[in-house]
Amino acid sequence: MDVPAQPRTQAPPARIRIQLPRPTIEEGRWPIKRTVGDTIAVSADVFRDGHEVLRAVVRYRGNGDRRWSEAPMVPLDAHHNGVRWAGEFTIGSVGPAQWTVQAWVDVFAGWRDEIARKLEAGQIDMSGETSEGLVILREAAERASGDDRSALEATVAALESGEPVALALDANLAAIMERVAERSEVTELAKPLDVYVDRELARFGAWYELFPRSFGGFRGVQEQLPRLAELGFDVLYLPPIHPIGHTNRKGRNNTLVAGPGDPGSPWAIGDEHGGHDAIHADLGTFEDFDALVAAAKEHGIEIALDFAIQCSADHPWLTEHPEWFNRRPDGTLKYAENPPKKYQDIYNVNWNSEDWHGLWQALYDVLRGWVDRGVTVFRVDNPHTKPVAFWRWLIAEIRRDNPEVIFLAEAFTRRAVMRELAKIGFSQSYTYFTWKNSGWELIEYVGELAHTEEAQYFRPNFFVNTPDILTDYLSHGGPPAFPVRLVLASTLSPSYGVYSGYEHFEHEQRPGSEEYLDNEKYELKQRRLDGPLLPMVQRLNHVRRENPALQRLENVRFLETDNEALISYAKREGSNVVVCIVNVDFTWAQEGACHVPYDLGVPPAFVVTDLLTGDRFDWHVGRNYVRLDPSERAAHVLRVETP
Amino acid sequence: MDVPAQPRTQAPPARIRIQLPRPTIEEGRWPIKRTVGDTIAVSADVFRDGHEVLRAVVRYRGNGDRRWSEAPMVPLDAHHNGVRWAGEFTIGSVGPAQWTVQAWVDVFAGWRDEIARKLEAGQIDMSGETSEGLVILREAAERASGDDRSALEATVAALESGEPVALALDANLAAIMERVAERSEVTELAKPLDVYVDRELARFGAWYELFPRSFGGFRGVQEQLPRLAELGFDVLYLPPIHPIGHTNRKGRNNTLVAGPGDPGSPWAIGDEHGGHDAIHADLGTFEDFDALVAAAKEHGIEIALDFAIQCSADHPWLTEHPEWFNRRPDGTLKYAENPPKKYQDIYNVNWNSEDWHGLWQALYDVLRGWVDRGVTVFRVDNPHTKPVAFWRWLIAEIRRDNPEVIFLAEAFTRRAVMRELAKIGFSQSYTYFTWKNSGWELIEYVGELAHTEEAQYFRPNFFVNTPDILTDYLSHGGPPAFPVRLVLASTLSPSYGVYSGYEHFEHEQRPGSEEYLDNEKYELKQRRLDGPLLPMVQRLNHVRRENPALQRLENVRFLETDNEALISYAKREGSNVVVCIVNVDFTWAQEGACHVPYDLGVPPAFVVTDLLTGDRFDWHVGRNYVRLDPSERAAHVLRVETP
Repeated sequence: MDVPAQPRTQAPPARIRIQLPRPTIEEGRWPIKRTVGDTIAVSADVFRDGHEVLRAVVRYRGNGDRRWSEAPMVPLDAHHNGVRWAGEFTIGSVGPAQWTVQAWVDVFAGWRDEIARKLEAGQIDMSGETSEGLVILREAAERASGDDRSALEATVAALESGEPVALALDANLAAIMERVAERSEVTELAKPLDVYVDRELARFGAWYELFPRSFGGFRGVQEQLPRLAELGFDVLYLPPIHPIGHTNRKGRNNTLVAGPGDPGSPWAIGDEHGGHDAIHADLGTFEDFDALVAAAKEHGIEIALDFAIQCSADHPWLTEHPEWFNRRPDGTLKYAENPPKKYQDIYNVNWNSEDWHGLWQALYDVLRGWVDRGVTVFRVDNPHTKPVAFWRWLIAEIRRDNPEVIFLAEAFTRRAVMRELAKIGFSQSYTYFTWKNSGWELIEYVGELAHTEEAQYFRPNFFVNTPDILTDYLSHGGPPAFPVRLVLASTLSPSYGVYSGYEHFEHEQRPGSEEYLDNEKYELKQRRLDGPLLPMVQRLNHVRRENPALQRLENVRFLETDNEALISYAKREGSNVVVCIVNVDFTWAQEGACHVPYDLGVPPAFVVTDLLTGDRFDWHVGRNYVRLDPSERAAHVLRVETP
Repeated sequence: MDVPAQPRTQAPPARIRIQLPRPTIEEGRWPIKRTVGDTIAVSADVFRDGHEVLRAVVRYRGNGDRRWSEAPMVPLDAHHNGVRWAGEFTIGSVGPAQWTVQAWVDVFAGWRDEIARKLEAGQIDMSGETSEGLVILREAAERASGDDRSALEATVAALESGEPVALALDANLAAIMERVAERSEVTELAKPLDVYVDRELARFGAWYELFPRSFGGFRGVQEQLPRLAELGFDVLYLPPIHPIGHTNRKGRNNTLVAGPGDPGSPWAIGDEHGGHDAIHADLGTFEDFDALVAAAKEHGIEIALDFAIQCSADHPWLTEHPEWFNRRPDGTLKYAENPPKKYQDIYNVNWNSEDWHGLWQALYDVLRGWVDRGVTVFRVDNPHTKPVAFWRWLIAEIRRDNPEVIFLAEAFTRRAVMRELAKIGFSQSYTYFTWKNSGWELIEYVGELAHTEEAQYFRPNFFVNTPDILTDYLSHGGPPAFPVRLVLASTLSPSYGVYSGYEHFEHEQRPGSEEYLDNEKYELKQRRLDGPLLPMVQRLNHVRRENPALQRLENVRFLETDNEALISYAKREGSNVVVCIVNVDFTWAQEGACHVPYDLGVPPAFVVTDLLTGDRFDWHVGRNYVRLDPSERAAHVLRVETP
């Protein structure tokens, strides 16, 4: 129990209390997340015993700032002497930032307030009050200069000569005192609160995933860049590009024995030519890779690499650092498994190794090497199966020199664990989106992500599919289901992703599984960017860039539709308002009404433009008829046209 | 930003994570409050990367305990590998207590789980797995003794001789291992969480307030004790018992000039005979006071004193310690005021005095003196107008030697400030109850008190009136309004209070104010405990003592009534279920239905007894007709009879 000791300091303990600052995560335990240029709205309870007039500011400091800046805070309910104060600030640099609240007593304002109330109540003898004011004004005059000083001295002289104290109520005097008065009883939060400020890409981006071997290696991928840029993708994510093990290599469809031509899973990392810091010879050279990264940047695209901590039996670390791997007492090596599931082609590292320190450093060195080659986005494979403390350390270490690096957590696991990974530093996370297919599931899930404390730290990246995930909804729904999920992902979440093949409506599952039949993980494919869904992808990516409302998550608001197969939501950012209506039933046409609430901030009657078709409709506050036939279209993405 | 340093410790950082322990206030910043004997139900997220089997316990330590005790925690959703664990413990001593969560890896259970899954999946070669199990079992055998040791050695020998590993699935072996296995990767919360454990009286008690001068001083009050005990009161609270100042003494009805016989307000403390440590001569001697305190205890009643930090102009401190008071630069003393309101008969201390340290100590000494005389309940006058830091220090200092002392905060101010006072140590607080007169206001207010984080620290004491508060509801409603508020206070809140005169239906306000006409604060009255409402008071106090459900707040559940003038709520504690229905309309009879929900835990049909009248009714789950006519009765207080 924290029993305060007998007071011994010279000054009495602070009388101003500053409590419950927001936004915070668990009262400030973890940094909240924002992106560069965001306005951060903050608030706190500020109060003190007595009738003094309080002032407050928010103080903040971005990465690299030597000094703190200040922005005003105002009481939200001054009339009722409310305790809640609010303010806002903007940080322009990427990296760790801090803010705090400072409050103080405005002695002059308190005195002024007191005499005003007494004069209004008709008090005649104000000599005692005047003597108090004179002390305040004389002290201020000494600190002031120029006109301010002259004015203060004149006021002092007037009061000394017996002029009525009412002259001190002059607004000009208040303005002078605001400039020259010293802050009294200055109090701040016990410690500043943390913000991690990311690049905008951490919040808003369209991801495309492809296997470079299916496009002819790095050079082949480089040829696709103009098309990918035209399609509007921001990130091109590549599964592991390292040598693939031979021992126990998986065959097609995850079979235990690979055929002679089978390339193996890229996640079985390492062979005699190298491990996590090497490149698979079939994909190209380091020069080819560097060229790809550079060319992508020129097209406004970032190459994201996969960071997967596991090794094939042929990875150099198994012989160089056998102490980093789990061995049974009988000497056998333990391959990765989740009994009864087995991953015979890979070995996990032993996090309890006596040389855990060397292991951590080696993994850091791997990542550092790719960052130094210009890679600043990583999709981290299964972070939840590695120690949280390791990730916290690794991310902080990398960001010490490269605060711009973005980490996407590929964690499909228990909610609390996914949240924890986000709190300790991951910029984004994969989500349960693929399995939220009905309207109510989406409303519940997105509502939690957008409107609870989770919104301060957990940034979802809504992938419509992954090499591991082809859901029953897509598999059973076939081509009509694909645009539904595409529109939902790209308009609900500012970050979303598509894995190659989606645009071709690939929807055949390996029997008994949620995986693709003839999964690209285990075989070589020949792919081209010519899928029939790509025009819609391109259109949506364009719409997302043109409409700031679609670049945020926390602004989502779900609307009534009178039909549970129709999900509708509005997003507003400044004057940009977008309303989406999606028919999640891929079989039947659905009718309903989109209820535009009176407090959405739109005119009573207005025009909406369907950003997917260019159609225009007359809409109004209240119920607006909608009908969506999956054979024609999956959704309306409507922009409210302001007159 | 807290960037974790490069790891340097010998062991790797903990892989087990223990997060979001509950109940807490602001993630553990302040102690939660409980009373002796309460079962404290706790929970936390407990997880780790990997497939290890985790165990967890709650560890706790009461005031004076040298060692920590342990109670088991269980996963709330083990089947789905959920992260939430729960447990409970009880603390039997008054004062500060602590608890934490400890979790560890159960190595044997993890191994056992793995082989069970593999055997079930049909794996044949278990030699590697067996070699792992042997290491665990051999180590355990070395630690074990007696039969456990023999059994473990036999298992080891059997496995060594090639017996199938399935024999390790034996339940008896699991029980032995539970006894002898060491905890691996033991992890606890970063720091323990605090509980302040009070006496039961801090939670549950009926208070009566009287001016001792209106009952003939301490001896006269002592004569009332048998009657007060019979009425069922637990605390007898006396306004300040100290000498009253002469200078600027207030006259009847708060007039500026006292007549010759006017006794003055007891809150204008101090005259030439003494201050806060003295007794008003008209009330009796210290011997009389000690006798009163002792006699009260014999009747099961505690005397509560008023602790009001202000001084009349005649208080000894004004001459002995002029530095403790506010003086204007012109030398005039500032009396207490809240402009334009003035309190000409009292002076506030100067908390910013250079000798603030001496002032704090003097106030501590005052309180210490009364505690040493056996007073362990204090009603603190206007704590919100004094520094929070002072109260935090004072309460902790007093409780260092006397953890049983109860502090009731007489703070009628902004919600955040009232909450803060409760967080820093006040045991109870006055509330907004007097101004919550409609059903919806009561449901909203009590719901917040009972069902939010506030319930962990803010204990309301529902006074039906005070010397300062005679509400419009009572004043306009007259006698029929009084039982309404009495039933609400005594059945909604475990702590409630009545100020003398209420039982006589005194309801005449001083015009233009919410105060009593001819307020007892300013004049001498002759009072007797013979008010017509006392039989109902006595009955309610008896009912409260007989029904544990009425001794708690957090168990309140509001029920539908189909009539907004009828407020209904149920409380359950163990098998004791009480349902109240109150007609808050003091003018008209009101009809409605009390909806007993299916999940209240009562039989489909049951008998209720009206504890105020003895009437019995047949009730059932669902709608039960009720009619309350204020000319007959204000409320039903129904106990559900269990067959």
